[in-house]
Amino acid sequence: MKLQGQEDFGHSSAHENVLAEELDSGLGPGPGLGGPSDTDNGESGVSKDPLLFIQLNELLGWPHALEWRETGRWVLFEEKLEVGAGRWSAPHVPTLALPSLQKLRSLLAEGIVLLDCQAQNLLELVEQVISGESLSPELRGQLQALLLQRPQHHIQTPGIRPCRGSKAFRSASHDEDTPLKHQNPLRQKLPPGTEAAAVLAGELGFLAQPLGAFVRLRNSVVLEPLTEVILPSRFFCLLLGPPTLEGSYHEMGRAAAVLLSDPQFQWSVRRAGDLHDLLAALDAFLQEVTTLPPGRWDPTARIPPPKRLSSQHKRLHSELQEVTGLSRQSAAQAEDKRHHGQHTPSPELQRTGRLFGGLVQDVRRKACWYPSDFLDALHPQCFSAVLYIYLATVTNAITFGGLLGDATEGAQGVLESFLGTAVAGAAFCLMAGQPLTILSSTGPVLVFERLLFSFSRDHSLDYLPFRLWVGVWVAAFCLVLVATEASLLVRYFTRFTEEGFCALISLIFVYDAVGKMLNLIHAYPIQRPGSPASGCFCQYPGPGGNASEWTSTKHRDTDVLSVHLGLVNASLLSPPECIRQGGSPHGPSCDTVPDIAFFSLLLFFTSFLCATALKHVKNSRLLPSAVRKVFSDFSSVLAILLGCGLDAFLGLATPKLLVPTEFKPTLPGRGWLVSPFGANPWWLSVAAALPALLLSILIFMDQQITAVILNRAEYRLQKGAGFHLDLFCIALLILLTSALGLPWYVSATVISLAHVDSLRRESKACVPGEDPHFLGIREQRLTGLVVFILTGVSIFLAPVLEFIPMPVLYGIFLHMGVAALSSIQFTKRVQLLLMPTKHQPDMLLLRHVPLSRVHLFTAIQLACLGLLWIIKSTPAAIIFPLMLLGLVGVRKALEWVFPPQELLWLDELMPEEEKNIPENGLEPEHLFSRNDREDSELMYQPKAPEINISVN
Amino acid sequence: MKLQGQEDFGHSSAHENVLAEELDSGLGPGPGLGGPSDTDNGESGVSKDPLLFIQLNELLGWPHALEWRETGRWVLFEEKLEVGAGRWSAPHVPTLALPSLQKLRSLLAEGIVLLDCQAQNLLELVEQVISGESLSPELRGQLQALLLQRPQHHIQTPGIRPCRGSKAFRSASHDEDTPLKHQNPLRQKLPPGTEAAAVLAGELGFLAQPLGAFVRLRNSVVLEPLTEVILPSRFFCLLLGPPTLEGSYHEMGRAAAVLLSDPQFQWSVRRAGDLHDLLAALDAFLQEVTTLPPGRWDPTARIPPPKRLSSQHKRLHSELQEVTGLSRQSAAQAEDKRHHGQHTPSPELQRTGRLFGGLVQDVRRKACWYPSDFLDALHPQCFSAVLYIYLATVTNAITFGGLLGDATEGAQGVLESFLGTAVAGAAFCLMAGQPLTILSSTGPVLVFERLLFSFSRDHSLDYLPFRLWVGVWVAAFCLVLVATEASLLVRYFTRFTEEGFCALISLIFVYDAVGKMLNLIHAYPIQRPGSPASGCFCQYPGPGGNASEWTSTKHRDTDVLSVHLGLVNASLLSPPECIRQGGSPHGPSCDTVPDIAFFSLLLFFTSFLCATALKHVKNSRLLPSAVRKVFSDFSSVLAILLGCGLDAFLGLATPKLLVPTEFKPTLPGRGWLVSPFGANPWWLSVAAALPALLLSILIFMDQQITAVILNRAEYRLQKGAGFHLDLFCIALLILLTSALGLPWYVSATVISLAHVDSLRRESKACVPGEDPHFLGIREQRLTGLVVFILTGVSIFLAPVLEFIPMPVLYGIFLHMGVAALSSIQFTKRVQLLLMPTKHQPDMLLLRHVPLSRVHLFTAIQLACLGLLWIIKSTPAAIIFPLMLLGLVGVRKALEWVFPPQELLWLDELMPEEEKNIPENGLEPEHLFSRNDREDSELMYQPKAPEINISVN
Repeated sequence: MKLQGQEDFGHSSAHENVLAEELDSGLGPGPGLGGPSDTDNGESGVSKDPLLFIQLNELLGWPHALEWRETGRWVLFEEKLEVGAGRWSAPHVPTLALPSLQKLRSLLAEGIVLLDCQAQNLLELVEQVISGESLSPELRGQLQALLLQRPQHHIQTPGIRPCRGSKAFRSASHDEDTPLKHQNPLRQKLPPGTEAAAVLAGELGFLAQPLGAFVRLRNSVVLEPLTEVILPSRFFCLLLGPPTLEGSYHEMGRAAAVLLSDPQFQWSVRRAGDLHDLLAALDAFLQEVTTLPPGRWDPTARIPPPKRLSSQHKRLHSELQEVTGLSRQSAAQAEDKRHHGQHTPSPELQRTGRLFGGLVQDVRRKACWYPSDFLDALHPQCFSAVLYIYLATVTNAITFGGLLGDATEGAQGVLESFLGTAVAGAAFCLMAGQPLTILSSTGPVLVFERLLFSFSRDHSLDYLPFRLWVGVWVAAFCLVLVATEASLLVRYFTRFTEEGFCALISLIFVYDAVGKMLNLIHAYPIQRPGSPASGCFCQYPGPGGNASEWTSTKHRDTDVLSVHLGLVNASLLSPPECIRQGGSPHGPSCDTVPDIAFFSLLLFFTSFLCATALKHVKNSRLLPSAVRKVFSDFSSVLAILLGCGLDAFLGLATPKLLVPTEFKPTLPGRGWLVSPFGANPWWLSVAAALPALLLSILIFMDQQITAVILNRAEYRLQKGAGFHLDLFCIALLILLTSALGLPWYVSATVISLAHVDSLRRESKACVPGEDPHFLGIREQRLTGLVVFILTGVSIFLAPVLEFIPMPVLYGIFLHMGVAALSSIQFTKRVQLLLMPTKHQPDMLLLRHVPLSRVHLFTAIQLACLGLLWIIKSTPAAIIFPLMLLGLVGVRKALEWVFPPQELLWLDELMPEEEKNIPENGLEPEHLFSRNDREDSELMYQPKAPEINISVN
Repeated sequence: MKLQGQEDFGHSSAHENVLAEELDSGLGPGPGLGGPSDTDNGESGVSKDPLLFIQLNELLGWPHALEWRETGRWVLFEEKLEVGAGRWSAPHVPTLALPSLQKLRSLLAEGIVLLDCQAQNLLELVEQVISGESLSPELRGQLQALLLQRPQHHIQTPGIRPCRGSKAFRSASHDEDTPLKHQNPLRQKLPPGTEAAAVLAGELGFLAQPLGAFVRLRNSVVLEPLTEVILPSRFFCLLLGPPTLEGSYHEMGRAAAVLLSDPQFQWSVRRAGDLHDLLAALDAFLQEVTTLPPGRWDPTARIPPPKRLSSQHKRLHSELQEVTGLSRQSAAQAEDKRHHGQHTPSPELQRTGRLFGGLVQDVRRKACWYPSDFLDALHPQCFSAVLYIYLATVTNAITFGGLLGDATEGAQGVLESFLGTAVAGAAFCLMAGQPLTILSSTGPVLVFERLLFSFSRDHSLDYLPFRLWVGVWVAAFCLVLVATEASLLVRYFTRFTEEGFCALISLIFVYDAVGKMLNLIHAYPIQRPGSPASGCFCQYPGPGGNASEWTSTKHRDTDVLSVHLGLVNASLLSPPECIRQGGSPHGPSCDTVPDIAFFSLLLFFTSFLCATALKHVKNSRLLPSAVRKVFSDFSSVLAILLGCGLDAFLGLATPKLLVPTEFKPTLPGRGWLVSPFGANPWWLSVAAALPALLLSILIFMDQQITAVILNRAEYRLQKGAGFHLDLFCIALLILLTSALGLPWYVSATVISLAHVDSLRRESKACVPGEDPHFLGIREQRLTGLVVFILTGVSIFLAPVLEFIPMPVLYGIFLHMGVAALSSIQFTKRVQLLLMPTKHQPDMLLLRHVPLSRVHLFTAIQLACLGLLWIIKSTPAAIIFPLMLLGLVGVRKALEWVFPPQELLWLDELMPEEEKNIPENGLEPEHLFSRNDREDSELMYQPKAPEINISVN
């Protein structure tokens, strides 16, 4: 088990939003916003217009030193030049005053509008603009000289690495930019084909009346000194006039630039036929602006770019209506279907009705992708994914090797953990339906194995042969599940089940880590100053004394043991040295190793806090994000290294990880193949069917919950899932690992998600203020395969591993448990119980479900969890897989307590419930509030962006 | 030294914003926003109109089950009813679509406008409204019945305590509400005199054309069932019409409510004479709205209430122009002056030119407030302030008693610390110019005392008599400083100096805490497993053996000591027990106390982390804010208690705080009065003048930096400062404490700030979305006096104190040092060095000064700090007060490196520099960007909301 990458799915709201956006962009990103990724995406629907870079040049210094100066620029959001600081402001949502828009409208209405200007350069353009004005020749000359004057651009110092590294882009930009030695860093952030728009605004004393011009060039041409980035310009807007008191030309210039940066306006104005169309587009913009009341909002406040722009959908729809005549209602219906889409079964989850029908279909579906599963891995990103997942897997194998060895008292150990991980993982990657899955020997299966071991110890059974028969039966049961297409039942695993499962496992982790730490402290007791007798001496069987004498005399005035040495041959050698010298240690402190308990505690807390802190480095503002990502991704590895370093520095005899020195099973005296009966009676092989039934339930649930999460729609997997095939592989591997006495393996949710996450294809988020767009996952088998081959090779690293102190590993366990607990929505709802209403976050859930009902739902979950915990702690522990299955039943019973609308928000819907919700009335408020805004809010905000992680 | 309350000034941005708002509201809060506090404030300028509560009732359920339902409400911000969840949304800035405002305008323009309606109840009102419409009698009846129908109000479950607890309010509300048993919780949040406005909107099938009405009642009357809160209504707005596709009446209703919630519109419409005025007010509103482009902002996103609304100033000005004819320019000039106001000397800082002139003036100024200094303390808030500051002071006395005892090797100890704090503090509170000051013996003076002690030890001087003479000279020098009005020099202490001072002291704290911890670990060495010899035995001088024999034999094959006991009489008693029994301990482990080192380390980290974590509980969302405040305020006390509890639980022999068992000086053999010469030569009393000169500089700087911070304009102190009087008191107290051998005391910045903060008078922030307004400080002498009397009484608690382990106190030191370091802007700028430009926060500083210049300034500060540290670490350490003064010189020299504009942003201006800045051109960008918005941004955003804390 490994929680690397969990942060990505659990905590980071930015990431959640990206996921949300992905969901949203199913219908294609809005025009403009999706611009940079359009080329890669291939999904975008309507607009293929190029992106527009808009620059505002202002005329300053009137009357003495007239100069044009760039004071703002727009791609998606506004960047303002901080003149004093000489830097661009952070990108922000532009805010405008209404009058500036109105003034702009009237200026354009009276000004010159050239909508298919043929100018080939700036001079021609300026001449055409000025020729339309009624000016004296002298003024005309002055104006033309002024307009041709080179503006002051603020070009930031370079140092920003180019972010579009694809060959296609490089050659394209090379072609365009050959004459340029001096490269603007912004240029490298803009996608190929970007066009420019220049807005020139200012006050000019010699003008008698305002002068406005709007030009759309027929062919975009480079208007050389006008824009800081050398791009072919498409639009040119001139706003000049006599000086006014209010300095309104600056604001009008901004208004023009903001208008041009609006995707809808841009779309319209590119297609406008005349002035009327232009003004209509402006009016359409005005109809859609959001206004903030002046008394409640400071107009100078800068709003950071929002993470999601759901209104794009709405605007897209109206555009769709215009363009395709698609009715609004049908578009809304399409949306509605998409919203519910996650509940309609995907092709992988449709029943064939034939024995092994699902398996056959899975094999067929995956077979055609098999060659591409290797070819698709040929990308540098896959190398870093391999490194990341390899380290996570090895950390996993080490930590859980330690845990497993503890649990089975050496029947399995670190070596088995490494070997099993390598063999099972590699085999699964080669055969499975979902090769992105990473197998792990941990989580509930480990808990079950521990129960099984203590059972067999209590009844004096030979563990490994008994376990072999359990494995045989599990494989058989799993084959039955495959044959009957039982995997289709995963649709009944809602968030309620997942969260109960995850919370239980996380709590077991926390409990185990703390418990093992306490055991360790008991093993190295603290020496309190109260006891009057201390020390240890080394006694030799020598001539000078009688060994029986040494406990002969007791001081009468002390009531505790004080050893009187009398006349003996003794020295103060340390106990091991004493034994080596042929003596025997005597005294109350001989077994005490001082300092170990507290030092272990320090190591435990250090590794826990260090792993947790490094995980959060990602959200820090310090250091470049690449460095932070390394710290965050490798937080467990770094924490373990730190703990080992501390331990090695002080050189104390802390308990270390037990590693075999040679390549043979950890349990002394067994071969690699487990004997089928050992010392057990024959009927035990039949009786093993009972625990195997329970384990099968557990494995089925664990495996399929992970598979469902991994195949969620938001990952946009192209090659499909293989629920049946995956379970089939798991069954075979359980047979194999049982026979070899290796750990049992199922899919590990967190590490598999980390794997998927490290293979994300994203557009580069380079346009200022833009977030990256998710493009898909590099689905292939090679990264997993290489990871497990490397893990196998790492077996020979084993001697290094014995430097790892156990308290460090316990600290990492604790970190994993706490991190997993805090990643689930359940934890957030538990926190709500303690949170005053006023401070509660604006969760969509809380907008739609009464607080008391939310609390009730949380309380029921807590009660279930408590019950599971109690069962786990009693002798009935071994049936806890059944109780986990019972969660599904409880969830089903909740339908009697909560109406479907509330369950939709609190959980997901089970298959039957979906039918209970009327087609066109999801929420009661719809019935009496026909409110567009609310609708869109409902429609586009995904209900639960969290991904629920079961820890393994 | 105590850092309680530091968070309030350093970290919390909310608090900074409050402070900022205070600064801003110097000219009076904007109308409406300042509403609830107007009555208390007495400062608000223009509008005394009552606050308006606006409720939107929507007509739902057409055509079957018509009902009015409350769906939104406004006081300052919008609260929307979450119908599904049955709760009010969090207050948010209302956003409107422009068309809804335009439609509202046209509906009002054609509708009925009654601006001085005489109706006495809802029936009369409805009749008057309907009579103006041309409707058939039947429709008229239906409409009337509908309008009189009782609306469904969403009234939240009570449980919110009333927050206006003043008697005046209670009686007022009692008078109004006598007929009401059922009290709405919102009612209790609204100030007395609040009026209501009801907006009724909806679609009504039987209407043929829209029906709009706007009514202003001449006398506000309770329109009983209309609003959820029973308030006299002033406005009534009806917006009905036939069903439309877009459901626009909901949005129009919201638009009307938002309009009414705008303070400026409210002001205008209260004074409107006819429809024309009403529409003009609406148009004025439209001219001022902030618009967000549709493509870049999701209109359904809810914007949380902003912390500051600087636009209110601008709006206020335009209003002032309207009302008083005040020209815009003069208003701006007034603002400008205010902005620079903090640099013009206050009356306390004006030179009299006479010997002791400043002191005489201080005494005169403060004398007239003396009676009120006791009467003003009669408020319950002062009790909690006493408790808080008492605990902080005692913690202070304990921790620094420990530190001081360490520093002077017992010449002073915990008892002196308690006694001195009580005597000096109480005397200062009774006499000082600024009685809010809390004295402390820590910070730079403690550092100096340590240097002085090691000097006198190195030269075998009698410390306390030497120290007495230093004290005499310091008092003399301070009197000279008082006589020459040297306190006026405080204006040269800019943030640069304060930060250098604070950073140095904080670093000394961190260094000392870690250093002392390491010393402790050295004192209790860790036993490594490498050494083969261990243990300790108790040897008796008895008949059976020869003591010389026990080291006689060494094993040849071990190269380390292995003690061979041979034939001796010995037992394994622990060393103390052994000595008690008449034996003597022998062996390598006899001096080793195991486990202490690591347990001390654990205690150290635990108390540090616990104090830090509890300090941050304040910003958590869990638990009610009162509980969180307790945790945060008493974080150090709680951390010490936790440490003591852990220590007591394990019962290990950790080093504890040394506390005398009886009331006598800690140094054995001295009386309470220090002998004037002791063993020192007579000329030492003259030579003491040299260190005294240095110490005087230090005390002057330390005292006056604190005084300046405490008397800053943002606290709006009414009774004035007393820089000269304060210094005079300090001089007398130094004389006294030197004679008694008690610690030296100066003002403690942080604890004094905490004191001031605990005495803030604030309006209750009860209107949804509103932040509390700062009203002033309860300036009085009683709280301080009581705190110090209690501290004196606590001397008899001394036996309890010896349960405190030293590592816990070191942990608290570390916490204090780290917290103080992280509170200064310098630290933020150091972080900027490591922060990629993209992630830098939007600091005003960074908008106006180039990044390279900011980095240069930070680097110079770092270099100064490094130099100070080096000096402190060399034998020249004793001159470090001079070097601190040197910081002022360095700052002066910076004028050659940085232009005044940059220094204004990076630091503050020194007196001479201010003259160098042209009156009307503060920033270069002003020269070429006459931009209202930028101006206002500059004008109203205070440059540096952080308060710089020097740690003592």
